[in-house]
Amino acid sequence: MDLLCEQITLFSPELAVVLDEALARELEKRIKPANGVEVLYGRQGYEAAATLSSAGLVVSAMVGAAGLLPTLAAIEHEKPVALANKECLVMAGELLMERARKKGIQIIPIDSEHNAIFQSLAGHRRQDLKQILLTASGGPFLDKPGEELDHMSPEIALRHPTWDMGPKITIDSATLMNKGLEVIEARWLFDVPLECIQVIIHPESIIHSMVAYRDGSVIAQLAIADMRIPIAYALSYPERLLLGFPPPDFVELGALTFQQPDLERFPCLALAMEACKVGKTCPAVLNAANEVAVRAFLNHQIGFRDIGKIVEDTIIKHQPVPDPGLSDILAADAWARQKAAESI
Amino acid sequence: MDLLCEQITLFSPELAVVLDEALARELEKRIKPANGVEVLYGRQGYEAAATLSSAGLVVSAMVGAAGLLPTLAAIEHEKPVALANKECLVMAGELLMERARKKGIQIIPIDSEHNAIFQSLAGHRRQDLKQILLTASGGPFLDKPGEELDHMSPEIALRHPTWDMGPKITIDSATLMNKGLEVIEARWLFDVPLECIQVIIHPESIIHSMVAYRDGSVIAQLAIADMRIPIAYALSYPERLLLGFPPPDFVELGALTFQQPDLERFPCLALAMEACKVGKTCPAVLNAANEVAVRAFLNHQIGFRDIGKIVEDTIIKHQPVPDPGLSDILAADAWARQKAAESI
Repeated sequence: MDLLCEQITLFSPELAVVLDEALARELEKRIKPANGVEVLYGRQGYEAAATLSSAGLVVSAMVGAAGLLPTLAAIEHEKPVALANKECLVMAGELLMERARKKGIQIIPIDSEHNAIFQSLAGHRRQDLKQILLTASGGPFLDKPGEELDHMSPEIALRHPTWDMGPKITIDSATLMNKGLEVIEARWLFDVPLECIQVIIHPESIIHSMVAYRDGSVIAQLAIADMRIPIAYALSYPERLLLGFPPPDFVELGALTFQQPDLERFPCLALAMEACKVGKTCPAVLNAANEVAVRAFLNHQIGFRDIGKIVEDTIIKHQPVPDPGLSDILAADAWARQKAAESI
Repeated sequence: MDLLCEQITLFSPELAVVLDEALARELEKRIKPANGVEVLYGRQGYEAAATLSSAGLVVSAMVGAAGLLPTLAAIEHEKPVALANKECLVMAGELLMERARKKGIQIIPIDSEHNAIFQSLAGHRRQDLKQILLTASGGPFLDKPGEELDHMSPEIALRHPTWDMGPKITIDSATLMNKGLEVIEARWLFDVPLECIQVIIHPESIIHSMVAYRDGSVIAQLAIADMRIPIAYALSYPERLLLGFPPPDFVELGALTFQQPDLERFPCLALAMEACKVGKTCPAVLNAANEVAVRAFLNHQIGFRDIGKIVEDTIIKHQPVPDPGLSDILAADAWARQKAAESI
C-alpha cells in the first residue's frame, strides 16, 4: 500500500486497482482526492485496467492464475501485451494465443528466457527454427543431494543464486517447476511442439535462452541477470533503452557452464513436461496445485519435497477435459486448488 | 589442378581461371574441349570471373591481397559479394565499403566471426549497437610460454585446435594476426570505430562472435566449428540450408571459457590494432609484410616469433599515405613486400 501510494504520487495515473473493497477504501483515504485517480478493485477492476482506452500497451505482471482474465480482456480490446504472467499461458496458452492471432495482437514476453527467445528469433526466418534451448539457473538446490532437500526451509529456498524475484517464482525456481511452466509457456508463445524444447541447466544465468536453426546455427541472447533488461525491452520494443547496464564481462566470468537437468531430484520439471504432453486441462491443474503447494511450503505447512508430491497427486486424480474452453479451465483450476488443499 | 578438373566435370562452369598462362594451357589440355569451358588466367581472368554476367553472387575467397581487385570489380558490376577474403578489407576497407554503399551492394561475410556478427545484427536496430565482441580460439599456442614460441615449427603451428583451414590463415591464427586482421575487417564491414571492438579469447570456438547493445543485451551466434555453416549461410542468405549439422551439445561441452588476449606474447594482434588506429596505408603494409613473413616461416627461413618482428620492422619504416587511393594502396603493398623480403 505504501509503495502504491508512492507510485500514484509519482505518476498520477488515471486508475489504480487493488485486491478488494476494503483496500480500495483505504487507498482512497490515503491519496489526495485532488489527484483525480479512480480506484477500483477485484476482477472488474483488473479488467478495467487491462482495457483502459488510453493504454497503448498492457503489462500483464500479476502473479499466478489471477493474470488470465485481465490478459484475455486486454487481447479482446486489441491492446498489445507485454507478458510477465506465465501462468495465463500455462493454463490457457492455446486459447490465449489463438485469440491474440485473430486480433493481430503481439505478445511480447517479459520473462527473461522468453524475452531472450523473442530476441533470438528477430531477423531470422521462423521456418528455419529447429529447437528452443531454454536455460535454467538450476536454483539454489542445484547441487544438493535428494535426501537433503527434505530439510530445506522456505528461508533457504528464497535465497536464489542469480535472480532477485518474488517468493512464489523463487520457490518455483528451487523446485524447477518454474522451468516446467516456462516450457509450457514457450510451447504456446512460440507455437513449437514440446519435443523441440530442450531445458539446459546454466548456473551463471548469463545466456538467457537460445534458438537453434536448421543449418546448425544457434542464436542466443546474453546479459547480466537483471530483470530491468527484459522489462525495458518489452516496454520499448523495437527500440532499446540506454539502461546503463554493461554487457556481461566474459573474461571476468571466465566460464559459462551447462548441465543436464536432474528430473529425479526435481520431479516438478518432469511433471510439467508430462502435463504439457497430455495437454487439455492438465497444465491448469498442475499450475493451480503448485500455487497452493508453494503457499503451504512458504507457510511452513509442508516440506520442500512435498510440493512435487502434492502436484503429482492432484494431477493423477484429475480427469482431463479435452479441447477445454475458458470455463473448463477455470473449473479445473478451482478443482485442483480444492484437491491440493485437501492433500495438505 | 586435379581438384579443379574434378570440379569442372561436376559443375560444367562457363569459365575457369588459373594463376598463369602455363597453367591455363595445361588445364585446357586436360578438360574435354566439348565441355565448352572458357579458360582464362591472371588478373584479367579473375576480374572476368568476378564480373561474369550470369553470376548472381560472387564468392570472393582468394587468399591474401590478390583478392582485392577482383572483389572491387564485382562491386563495380553490382554483384552482391560473399566475402571470405579479409585482406581486401584490411588493405582498402574504407574505399571498398564506400563503393559498395554507392552501388547499393550487400557484402555478406563468410569469415565465421563476421558471419556471426552479421547474424547477430539481423533483426536489431543498428543505432542500438554498442560493441562488437570478436571471439578468438587463441590458436595452438594459447598456453605456450613466450620463450617456447621461438622454437615452434611450421608443422606444429599448422595443427589448429578447432578449425581446419589453409596454411596461411592457420599460421595467422597461431600469431593472432588473424584476429588483428579480423578487427580491421570488422571495423570497415560494420562501420564501427576500433574502440567499439573487443577481442575475447574463447578456446572452444563455439561462440563465433557477439554484438552488445545499448541496453546491456548481447546477441551471439553459436555453432560447432565447421566453415560449411557460415559458407552456406552466405550462399543461401536470407534462407538457411538444412545442412544436417546439430547445434552444439552444450551439456557435452560442459563449459565455454573466456580469457583476455595476451598482447605481449602475441604482438601481431597489437600491431594490427595499432595499424587500424593509424589507418592510411598502414593496414595494407601490415598485411603485405605479414604475407611475406608467413611464407618465409612456412619455408623454414625464419622462426615463429620473427613474423611479428618483420611486420613491426616494416611498419616502422613505412611513411603512411593519407586518404590513399587504390594506386597508393597497391604501391604500399608492393613496397612492404620488398622491405619484408629484405628483412628476411
